[in-house]
Amino acid sequence: MTIRLDDRFVRPFLSDYELKKTEADVEKAIKTLRTRTGAGAEMLGWLDLPEAYDKEEFARIKAAAAKIRSECDVFIVIGIGGSYLGSRAVIEFLKSPRHNLLGDGPRIFFSGCNISDSDLDELTEICRGKNVCINVISKSGTTTEPAISFRYFRAMIEEKYGKDGARDHIFVTTDKCRGTLKKFSDEAGYETFVVPDAVGGRFSVLTAVGLLPIAVAGIDIDELMGGARDAMKELDTDGIADNPAYNYALIRNTLYRQGKAAEILVGYAPYLLMLNEWWKQLYGESEGKDGKGLYPSSVIFSTDLHSLGQFIQSGERMMFETVLNIEKSDSDAKVPFDAANVDGLNFVAGTSLAEINNTALNATVLAHVDGGVPNVILNLKDRSAHSLGYLIYFFELACAVSGYTLGVNPFDQPGVEAYKKNMFALLGKPGYEDMADALRARLK
Amino acid sequence: MTIRLDDRFVRPFLSDYELKKTEADVEKAIKTLRTRTGAGAEMLGWLDLPEAYDKEEFARIKAAAAKIRSECDVFIVIGIGGSYLGSRAVIEFLKSPRHNLLGDGPRIFFSGCNISDSDLDELTEICRGKNVCINVISKSGTTTEPAISFRYFRAMIEEKYGKDGARDHIFVTTDKCRGTLKKFSDEAGYETFVVPDAVGGRFSVLTAVGLLPIAVAGIDIDELMGGARDAMKELDTDGIADNPAYNYALIRNTLYRQGKAAEILVGYAPYLLMLNEWWKQLYGESEGKDGKGLYPSSVIFSTDLHSLGQFIQSGERMMFETVLNIEKSDSDAKVPFDAANVDGLNFVAGTSLAEINNTALNATVLAHVDGGVPNVILNLKDRSAHSLGYLIYFFELACAVSGYTLGVNPFDQPGVEAYKKNMFALLGKPGYEDMADALRARLK
Repeated sequence: MTIRLDDRFVRPFLSDYELKKTEADVEKAIKTLRTRTGAGAEMLGWLDLPEAYDKEEFARIKAAAAKIRSECDVFIVIGIGGSYLGSRAVIEFLKSPRHNLLGDGPRIFFSGCNISDSDLDELTEICRGKNVCINVISKSGTTTEPAISFRYFRAMIEEKYGKDGARDHIFVTTDKCRGTLKKFSDEAGYETFVVPDAVGGRFSVLTAVGLLPIAVAGIDIDELMGGARDAMKELDTDGIADNPAYNYALIRNTLYRQGKAAEILVGYAPYLLMLNEWWKQLYGESEGKDGKGLYPSSVIFSTDLHSLGQFIQSGERMMFETVLNIEKSDSDAKVPFDAANVDGLNFVAGTSLAEINNTALNATVLAHVDGGVPNVILNLKDRSAHSLGYLIYFFELACAVSGYTLGVNPFDQPGVEAYKKNMFALLGKPGYEDMADALRARLK
Repeated sequence: MTIRLDDRFVRPFLSDYELKKTEADVEKAIKTLRTRTGAGAEMLGWLDLPEAYDKEEFARIKAAAAKIRSECDVFIVIGIGGSYLGSRAVIEFLKSPRHNLLGDGPRIFFSGCNISDSDLDELTEICRGKNVCINVISKSGTTTEPAISFRYFRAMIEEKYGKDGARDHIFVTTDKCRGTLKKFSDEAGYETFVVPDAVGGRFSVLTAVGLLPIAVAGIDIDELMGGARDAMKELDTDGIADNPAYNYALIRNTLYRQGKAAEILVGYAPYLLMLNEWWKQLYGESEGKDGKGLYPSSVIFSTDLHSLGQFIQSGERMMFETVLNIEKSDSDAKVPFDAANVDGLNFVAGTSLAEINNTALNATVLAHVDGGVPNVILNLKDRSAHSLGYLIYFFELACAVSGYTLGVNPFDQPGVEAYKKNMFALLGKPGYEDMADALRARLK
């Protein structure tokens, strides 16, 4: 299998009794999911997406990406939450967090995922004198952050290329037919792609939402979908035992019931940092409701062993770790021999960095287990698009089962509205006047 | 004051009784710190550093930085933990997380803070045909990650410029007199700077450890030290009430005693991301011991309101938030007017992004408080080097007082050794043979 779950370093922390109890609930959760009878069942479009996706649109995505790659210097992806985390995670995983400095295809930036003026000023500076394309991603077209950014960059592009020329530089991913952004885009003549109704933002990386930016980065999206398709087939098993996704849901729920407050996703390379962030949204937003859920946190080791390592080793025992191990490396970098042996490291001269990094992983798992921190290990075959597609589907499936096991609707996010309403009121949006007065009084 | 602590949105969560109880311990902690009679008192060099720093070395740092800025295309900082987090945090805060794409001075990269082969391969690629300088930062010179990286880049530089020429390209920050790296550097003729004995890694950003890279980025280190000096004077008060650092220590300890498991540091701009990481080491490594401590976590809003917002609003109530509000913005970016009003945002056309971002902050504080999450607000005057120097000292002082209040030694990090020992054993370092057999048996 592309993913193997290793439970040797978590099993000693779990009793048969606890596991059996949770197992019964996981089995129910799987049934709820597979029979599409649970809360949020209308949002299960991601479940068979790797086979049921729109092939005609897929071809259009590849064509648009090829055009953007050949014609643009700078490609700006405008979106927030699920509308940027997935594509950014995939691009950094398969290319590099430094992809913009390595000079393969257009530079890709993410905008509309904050309200930072300095961030926008910098992007404006970076675009000066460059050939720019943008892809705005918003189901409704009215989410504040991307809307502000789209106003900026649409104005910039219309100034650069004129209203007619703008058509070759603006790509819109939005609702299939509803919403003001769709209507406006059709009238303006922008090419549009679809945010499907049955796929929530945090599950949307394998739709046009993620695929267009990913393809612009030069990644083989057929490979990525192929991996997800293999996962879809292989992870549809009857039992829990041989299914790493179901097992992962079982283990993390058992640890939560034991009283663990946080799960830390651990990666051993900088290219995993944004995948961690994508995972945090997937699990945090799916499970963090009704006063429940494991707080999703993440680290990159060995980097953060020198910052959070002390806490994880010996601080408050409130967490467990899920370690994502990429089994195969493509590099042959080795520790150089140094005649002076200043650092005393000649005993590893000639050893590959991949082997040393893997040794650090094993060494840390043992150390943290000795410190009382359960460690789940997810072994992923390699750093290919196929394996990543597999991993994405694995995490999505495990998340749905985990959420149902927890007893929540894993597919809604009602809590995200609270700050938005307050913000509209405080900004003076018509219709929010009463609310605004009450809020202002509290801020005095 | 440069920093004002606003406790209006945390005070309703605290009883007078609880506060008073913790207050007594904070008072004791302050006394322990100021009389230098507590555990780790030999590591209090940071306490009067903003006045007592080595002026001759400070001048050498500025001279070296000017030379590097004028001669190098690429500057590689080699260090891990406290040897890179501080300078990276300051550079991103005052310049930008995208500083390498904005073309002011040499590109600055951080290496030796992981064991990632792909990371090293990329940096090698980036250095091709470029004029390269490096600054290796390691007290002992034997920490594995930076040692491997230093082997690489020293070899690269010796190949580019010869052994003699290398002297102009290698800068070493290490122990004043002990250690193999100091000895080797003196023999090779490299310019050296000092990691002081009495300042731990996570407190070292205002020593040569942080200052050389910061100065290479073109930042005014006099301003930075000046801010820290003002903090040192203004925050040395008798009582807790008027002292934001002591108050912060008081509040977070009271919340911890109430049962909170995690503190989330919240920033509202991408330039705060690495400052969050620096803070996580400072607090996590100082307090996470003896089975105690608040787990330090962080987010950037509004970005992460669309990923972790749901959890913070409505998930498990295990956290509180500390919001760092930068009060003044230097940008005049405004929401453009759009005749089509596709997004319905014309009611804020002409409003500055800074105002909208600040409204998002207020809106979110109220929403999260309504969700049961205590919010501490730290108001920092502006985004200047002076204010940042002030903030750094503020966090260090509060951390020391907080750690003593918690009843730990805030200045050691014994837990960091556990994984290192395991790693040396598994890598076959002479002297670790017995340990290695036992570890290998567990990994079978």
